[in-house]
Amino acid sequence: MRYLKLTVAYDGTHFVGWQIQPNGPSIQGHLQEAWQAVTGESLVMTGSGRTDSGVHAVGQVASLVTHHPLPVAAIPGALNANLPETIVVREAREMDYDFHAIRDAVAKTYRYTIQMGRRRSPFLLQRSWYVPRELDTELMSRAGQLFIGRHDFASLQSAGAPRRSTIRTILKMVCETIDVDGFPLFQVYVTGDGFLYNMVRNLVGTLMLVGRKRLLPEDIPKILAAKDRTIAGPTAPAAGLTLMHVEYQRPDQVNGV
Amino acid sequence: MRYLKLTVAYDGTHFVGWQIQPNGPSIQGHLQEAWQAVTGESLVMTGSGRTDSGVHAVGQVASLVTHHPLPVAAIPGALNANLPETIVVREAREMDYDFHAIRDAVAKTYRYTIQMGRRRSPFLLQRSWYVPRELDTELMSRAGQLFIGRHDFASLQSAGAPRRSTIRTILKMVCETIDVDGFPLFQVYVTGDGFLYNMVRNLVGTLMLVGRKRLLPEDIPKILAAKDRTIAGPTAPAAGLTLMHVEYQRPDQVNGV
Repeated sequence: MRYLKLTVAYDGTHFVGWQIQPNGPSIQGHLQEAWQAVTGESLVMTGSGRTDSGVHAVGQVASLVTHHPLPVAAIPGALNANLPETIVVREAREMDYDFHAIRDAVAKTYRYTIQMGRRRSPFLLQRSWYVPRELDTELMSRAGQLFIGRHDFASLQSAGAPRRSTIRTILKMVCETIDVDGFPLFQVYVTGDGFLYNMVRNLVGTLMLVGRKRLLPEDIPKILAAKDRTIAGPTAPAAGLTLMHVEYQRPDQVNGV
Repeated sequence: MRYLKLTVAYDGTHFVGWQIQPNGPSIQGHLQEAWQAVTGESLVMTGSGRTDSGVHAVGQVASLVTHHPLPVAAIPGALNANLPETIVVREAREMDYDFHAIRDAVAKTYRYTIQMGRRRSPFLLQRSWYVPRELDTELMSRAGQLFIGRHDFASLQSAGAPRRSTIRTILKMVCETIDVDGFPLFQVYVTGDGFLYNMVRNLVGTLMLVGRKRLLPEDIPKILAAKDRTIAGPTAPAAGLTLMHVEYQRPDQVNGV
């Protein structure tokens, strides 16, 4: 029995999302079909999490269990030859334990990109949220820091996929303002031990209201304390979101053994 | 009579190029139609140069002559409301002389992007040339410097649009290697007083052969001296090319008056 870890990048624009669904092509579906084309083997790949339609990934992780002897070094090239150009297997690794992409994940990092200002870049249409105004990025960065820590994030959970517990820990939050060919971007990198449904997109929608001065940084703790989705900001569009990295630890090491 | 200068960005992927052509949508055609939709006026806009199909622009410049009183500050927004999202008027300026986008240009800067290495980024498909190998970027940068100066660039001129003189001056050449989300890029910024047909793309194709060690930096002067297109490298694909900036001087100031 072999346990494999795949690291995958994709442009999510033209997919229904990570997970196989009846209504269109998915990343998981394409990967499983590519695996079958290469090995003849039909199997299920487990993604570290479902990314929604339009959400991108630089470092999504999938796990799979196989008996097939295909050498690990040959896997990315063989799969990529059977995938659309918008899905790329960056790396395959052989794991020496029963690696599971969801169970063993200890942290995930997402990036969200807002393009702001009076003119919309023609180059970021599918990879950012265009907000056609000036935003106070200084205030947004200050507000962002107030999400760090262990909190009940019920106010940032969209309906549709409720979780048993809405308590999560945001470990790191980096906000930066950059200029790409004269178009100003505000980017947020959020690292957490787990995320509720649409949590990053709802967090960014809330930061945007701070940037527009409809909310103050001081409102963030109140919004979290309210545990009420309706008082936080809107859900930022999927196109601005990218899953950057998933961090793993062997399950027998999670508690410091 | 009003002389206007427009600065325009576009993703050239789905256009036949800057210039109006019978076989598909062009940037110039869209801009002229947008102008007509806004003002009722049918006119011809002059671009600083024709970009080919698939070539992008961050700062293409167009000139136009009009009697219409539309305030200059309202022009970008009015045109953008009548343009596809892949064409953006960034700025409109009122000129106090008979500004002409071709005649008055004194320098242009292009950027060319090569994506190299074993895995192709899913995010740069239409904005780079993918070369699926390691390239010696140190050698490429050294070779790039040897194009600087006033030379006969006949070896880098593609057939199809011969010019009276093939002598041009490359004023500046900046090569850089950057990493975008773990995908390595080699970018060249070339500034010149003018360019022959496909000159930047042929220059980059030649640099690529240096990166693959099929040519040495020392071969560059020999290639220029030969004035023979067949001994330089291949024409790099349109998708990697972006017109960044066009520099202007008033015609009565060009000779230092």
